[in-house]
Amino acid sequence: VRDYYWAGVDAGRVWQLVTSHHEGGSPVGQPVDIEELEAAVHDKLEQRTFDYIAGGAGAERTVRANRAAFARRFLLPRVLVGVAERDLSTALLGTPLSMPVILAPTGAHGLVHPDGEVETVRGAAVASTLMAVSGGSTMSLEEIARAASPRPRLWHHLYFHPNRAVTEWLIERAQQAGYSALVVTADAPVLGRRDRDLRNNLAPLQLRIGNYDSLPPGVSEIGDSTSFVTNPGLTWTDVTWLRSRTTLPVVVKGILRPDDAVRAVDAGADAVWVSNHGGRQLDGAVATLDALPAVVAALDGRVPVIQDGGVRRGTDVLVALALGAAAVAVGRPQLWGLAMAGADGVQHVLRTLRDELSIAMALAGCRSIRDVDTSLIA
Amino acid sequence: VRDYYWAGVDAGRVWQLVTSHHEGGSPVGQPVDIEELEAAVHDKLEQRTFDYIAGGAGAERTVRANRAAFARRFLLPRVLVGVAERDLSTALLGTPLSMPVILAPTGAHGLVHPDGEVETVRGAAVASTLMAVSGGSTMSLEEIARAASPRPRLWHHLYFHPNRAVTEWLIERAQQAGYSALVVTADAPVLGRRDRDLRNNLAPLQLRIGNYDSLPPGVSEIGDSTSFVTNPGLTWTDVTWLRSRTTLPVVVKGILRPDDAVRAVDAGADAVWVSNHGGRQLDGAVATLDALPAVVAALDGRVPVIQDGGVRRGTDVLVALALGAAAVAVGRPQLWGLAMAGADGVQHVLRTLRDELSIAMALAGCRSIRDVDTSLIA
Amino acid sequence: VRDYYWAGVDAGRVWQLVTSHHEGGSPVGQPVDIEELEAAVHDKLEQRTFDYIAGGAGAERTVRANRAAFARRFLLPRVLVGVAERDLSTALLGTPLSMPVILAPTGAHGLVHPDGEVETVRGAAVASTLMAVSGGSTMSLEEIARAASPRPRLWHHLYFHPNRAVTEWLIERAQQAGYSALVVTADAPVLGRRDRDLRNNLAPLQLRIGNYDSLPPGVSEIGDSTSFVTNPGLTWTDVTWLRSRTTLPVVVKGILRPDDAVRAVDAGADAVWVSNHGGRQLDGAVATLDALPAVVAALDGRVPVIQDGGVRRGTDVLVALALGAAAVAVGRPQLWGLAMAGADGVQHVLRTLRDELSIAMALAGCRSIRDVDTSLIA
Amino acid sequence: VRDYYWAGVDAGRVWQLVTSHHEGGSPVGQPVDIEELEAAVHDKLEQRTFDYIAGGAGAERTVRANRAAFARRFLLPRVLVGVAERDLSTALLGTPLSMPVILAPTGAHGLVHPDGEVETVRGAAVASTLMAVSGGSTMSLEEIARAASPRPRLWHHLYFHPNRAVTEWLIERAQQAGYSALVVTADAPVLGRRDRDLRNNLAPLQLRIGNYDSLPPGVSEIGDSTSFVTNPGLTWTDVTWLRSRTTLPVVVKGILRPDDAVRAVDAGADAVWVSNHGGRQLDGAVATLDALPAVVAALDGRVPVIQDGGVRRGTDVLVALALGAAAVAVGRPQLWGLAMAGADGVQHVLRTLRDELSIAMALAGCRSIRDVDTSLIA
Repeated sequence: VRDYYWAGVDAGRVWQLVTSHHEGGSPVGQPVDIEELEAAVHDKLEQRTFDYIAGGAGAERTVRANRAAFARRFLLPRVLVGVAERDLSTALLGTPLSMPVILAPTGAHGLVHPDGEVETVRGAAVASTLMAVSGGSTMSLEEIARAASPRPRLWHHLYFHPNRAVTEWLIERAQQAGYSALVVTADAPVLGRRDRDLRNNLAPLQLRIGNYDSLPPGVSEIGDSTSFVTNPGLTWTDVTWLRSRTTLPVVVKGILRPDDAVRAVDAGADAVWVSNHGGRQLDGAVATLDALPAVVAALDGRVPVIQDGGVRRGTDVLVALALGAAAVAVGRPQLWGLAMAGADGVQHVLRTLRDELSIAMALAGCRSIRDVDTSLIA
Repeated sequence: VRDYYWAGVDAGRVWQLVTSHHEGGSPVGQPVDIEELEAAVHDKLEQRTFDYIAGGAGAERTVRANRAAFARRFLLPRVLVGVAERDLSTALLGTPLSMPVILAPTGAHGLVHPDGEVETVRGAAVASTLMAVSGGSTMSLEEIARAASPRPRLWHHLYFHPNRAVTEWLIERAQQAGYSALVVTADAPVLGRRDRDLRNNLAPLQLRIGNYDSLPPGVSEIGDSTSFVTNPGLTWTDVTWLRSRTTLPVVVKGILRPDDAVRAVDAGADAVWVSNHGGRQLDGAVATLDALPAVVAALDGRVPVIQDGGVRRGTDVLVALALGAAAVAVGRPQLWGLAMAGADGVQHVLRTLRDELSIAMALAGCRSIRDVDTSLIA
Repeated sequence: VRDYYWAGVDAGRVWQLVTSHHEGGSPVGQPVDIEELEAAVHDKLEQRTFDYIAGGAGAERTVRANRAAFARRFLLPRVLVGVAERDLSTALLGTPLSMPVILAPTGAHGLVHPDGEVETVRGAAVASTLMAVSGGSTMSLEEIARAASPRPRLWHHLYFHPNRAVTEWLIERAQQAGYSALVVTADAPVLGRRDRDLRNNLAPLQLRIGNYDSLPPGVSEIGDSTSFVTNPGLTWTDVTWLRSRTTLPVVVKGILRPDDAVRAVDAGADAVWVSNHGGRQLDGAVATLDALPAVVAALDGRVPVIQDGGVRRGTDVLVALALGAAAVAVGRPQLWGLAMAGADGVQHVLRTLRDELSIAMALAGCRSIRDVDTSLIA
Repeated sequence: VRDYYWAGVDAGRVWQLVTSHHEGGSPVGQPVDIEELEAAVHDKLEQRTFDYIAGGAGAERTVRANRAAFARRFLLPRVLVGVAERDLSTALLGTPLSMPVILAPTGAHGLVHPDGEVETVRGAAVASTLMAVSGGSTMSLEEIARAASPRPRLWHHLYFHPNRAVTEWLIERAQQAGYSALVVTADAPVLGRRDRDLRNNLAPLQLRIGNYDSLPPGVSEIGDSTSFVTNPGLTWTDVTWLRSRTTLPVVVKGILRPDDAVRAVDAGADAVWVSNHGGRQLDGAVATLDALPAVVAALDGRVPVIQDGGVRRGTDVLVALALGAAAVAVGRPQLWGLAMAGADGVQHVLRTLRDELSIAMALAGCRSIRDVDTSLIA
């Protein structure tokens, strides 16, 4: 008589992580994938905080559409090609990554963890992947960079302040701190109307915005918080200005139209990020996965394309790559991990995606990211 | 430490309105959009009154299809065009409007508010938009016009009485009172079979029909109430007759077929109104949003096209405009606002739609109504 | 102040009927359409009897598909054509009908009413439409014909007995009794596997089969009941034989394929009946409404086409006619009416469909059945 | 008065079987089809055991898609062709079968029955069909072959051990024991990530793996259980090697792509098995029924194609055959039968499918398997 092992027993489980934070508790019933993690966090967070993260604009059609677009894609796996060794590594604008999954900029991590983005980046560092840090971070960009040392994989998500001096001050600080690219948000000229937050009657929250502990020289007042996250006057001219102002690569995030993608590259962008802000801005905006193929076709390889929105499983990563993304970014999942267990939680989210992607690549007959092509899509 | 404001805190909220009518109550949990307003009104109105407004013909397939048609459309927003200033204003048959949203003719406002259409038009006036007043209004057309002074934006929805003298008398009164267009209903030769009303065993209701307090000279009897809302004998010849009988613009409402749209203009219509009567007449009639593009194409710009049916959000307005509508009209939402808080409620419905449309335009890269084109539809 | 009548108050209501059978009861809450009637009958009948009627074969995919096919069709109504007078009458194989709705053959009416088909045909007679009587009727074909006097509108649904003498005896009797056509069932070579009946463990039922009270001359035994309803050996040759054996029109029922439709006419059929036996035979068979257009196209007007399956509303009738049916037949609805109130119930089902069809025709711009064309389908 | 038999009373019922195992119990309410059998087994098995069998990888999209693909197909039955005699028999790689339904390889039958595959094959033998036995069987391949005597219809499902000597030893044993083909699994280079099992915290199970009671000559250790079910290094070269190593037919199982199907035949496969491992490996893999037509077209008749995944009813078998399958295989249903009543349960599952297929063929106008063609698909 020999042991028969139940299937999948060796694949990474979130419960191992969760257990270490609930000493003595039984691991049975703990989340095993990101969807279950979200449910577990739901039980832990205050409802309005959960809603702020999970919710989107209007009727949340785009939030749902982002997920539904993955549910509509089916795979045609290749078999018998030998997948004992798989290489998930890739690189983005010169930064080597352990896998084609990065952290999307999301604001105010202090909402769910006292050390905020400092914890988040520690999780990303262990997973050897990149964090695009929001300009609205609780911790300052320097603190975050220090936590990511000695090998920071960081991009700075730059909000254009109406006062250009403030913007230049931020660029300079990001460069100094070792950030390796600047991300421009194109889809937030104004804030989306988020029905859940209105319903929850969210009041202003006393939360540090880390990058404004001091003010730039010659600036005495930088206005209310709205200025930190939106700028209705932003145009392509600002992208061109930024391109001329820094030697760092510039990424334009929030593109859904092929013509805008071409415009971005013409304005100097080094990468295009297909995003609808996780459905938090224009409700009814097309699902990112549905927008991706036309953007990829229009760019024809001129610059890499990043996709975010709805990525929750390793097979989702595989699908996005097969449709032409160079990498995907996850937003809410990093916050679920952070809320559950700080840096360990973030790392665990990334490890779960990595485990799932590794298995998906093996089962789809891909030994490396280069093997992922459109013929995998049914 | 600085304040971090929750997203969307500045966007208009219905609860502010509702609060003012429920003194001392908490605004938390009050409706923030029109769908929630409807739910709140549901709790307030008698069920059969709610059903009379919310319901439609037969199995209510068309009621649902009108909404579902919006749920199927997704947007391709344009970015980085500079949207600090947005202009939502437009004009319809010479009437300037603050936005491309008007009030569709709906009967018997006295059902939900003692002052009926007089309150409704006050809300529309504050919002600087147009009300198409039903011929079956509880208040007389003159009372409604007086309430809209000094700058009435009113259309009269003309029912053709079997006795032409009655019809001419109504036309004359509308012209005298300052109504700026006449609307002919094409989709009500008979009343639709409304299962909810039959189920609720609705008995005749003692409710004033404002336009018949007196009778025209030489007419002693105008028949039962059915004559006020339907006319099975109506034909294109009557439209031609009306065109010759008045100098006011004539609008034909209830068009779903491209050939009928062309017929309407050939008969002298100055605008075509794509409508299925909110799904209250022919159950199974095509959704108006689905019918719209072919009508727009057939008319080829000869006259403006109005659409109603299923508009509940600012993004819905954007979609209808992108598909070729010059303006949209809302029916049931005005009654939910009226039922909840009279003129303030109507105004609030319009303000909510305006706020939502303004944000949607900003996020879609539209500085004015003229910027809304079909390329926005995915 | 004048009366304002609630919409639809004049349209026929089932509750008026039901009320007359529940004296003193309130009409409020009684069924107003056939779907509600079915729910009411559900409460009245023994579950297994209800299931026998309502159920279908296997997973009942075809039962649902028949209804779903109607739910997918939308109408493009024509307006302003003048519909004060509508003519719903038509004719089928020489039989004048008050409307293009007939009763499909359904067996064993004695299950839900002691007088069975005699009551059913009385309802059909009042409605001036045709009943196709099942060969498995509880009452004899002669009793049914007598109840339909003096102007019987009857077709006999002929099961081919393995012993041809029995079949000839039935043909002779139907001709003698005044039946005006013979219907051959093509879709019942064996009985479908009906999971609900198996689940309910239905035992043989002591129920009269009216046509076999006596036996034909020279026949002493006609076998078990299976012989009365199925015949696996039946082929097109038998249709040709029947064509040569009778002067009555021959209708082939149970056709779903265009090639079979042509084969039927080539074998001498005077009408083709598109049916999947209400989903009671081959589960997964295509919905009849989906099969109809190709059959109509293949026949190209050579013979009229009847459709059954899923017709529950007047708008369904309109859709089937627009797709090329000369008439539709209803199966289960007649049994719901019969179960609820005998002949009055059957009549009421037919009156409801007639009222609904009349309103639908008015709203779609059809003054007569001839005005119903494919341009009505969106 | 004569008996009227309720429809379907003669069709096989699972309850007759179940009754014999629950003496004295009422047959009423017992499962009548495989879906109900699954529900009944759910009540009987420990939840985690049920989940291990019923569940799949990830979000179980492919598990659902396999079923949904059947639900999307509708049939165009042929009528009046004479179906009194139907022949369901066929043959696969020289093995005559009573019907085109075989048992797919599924591991560890000891989980649900102490005699495991020995019971399963007895059920298959009574039904005169073929069992493809998993290499991970609880009982040894020799024990299973003995139970299938004197006319074994067996295929051996060969896992390629990293140590080729182990693989050769298995091939030799299968040939000696009378297995008539070898099946290579192409879709299990690694184990799928099965969320239900992770959630249930499945611990290693002490369960015999029958084929390894002894070890091959010269081998002292064969590694952990993972080696018995997966081999990430497997390539087409191994298929070619196997083809040269045995005179038995070789079947490649787990093909979804047309190009892989051609590669399989080029590598020497005698049959191609379209499978996604019942949705237990790559979640998001295309439904097998959706993949089938392109594979059939690419192979153009060079070798027979087997399909598994989602077959639960006789009409499913008919659909798969109409789309080009030579036979279908069932996985989970055999385990439901085995769990419920051992060999009798397995036999009953096969008898139910046979009864349903026989009725479906009659109703679709097919006298033999050869009559099933693509014109049956709507």
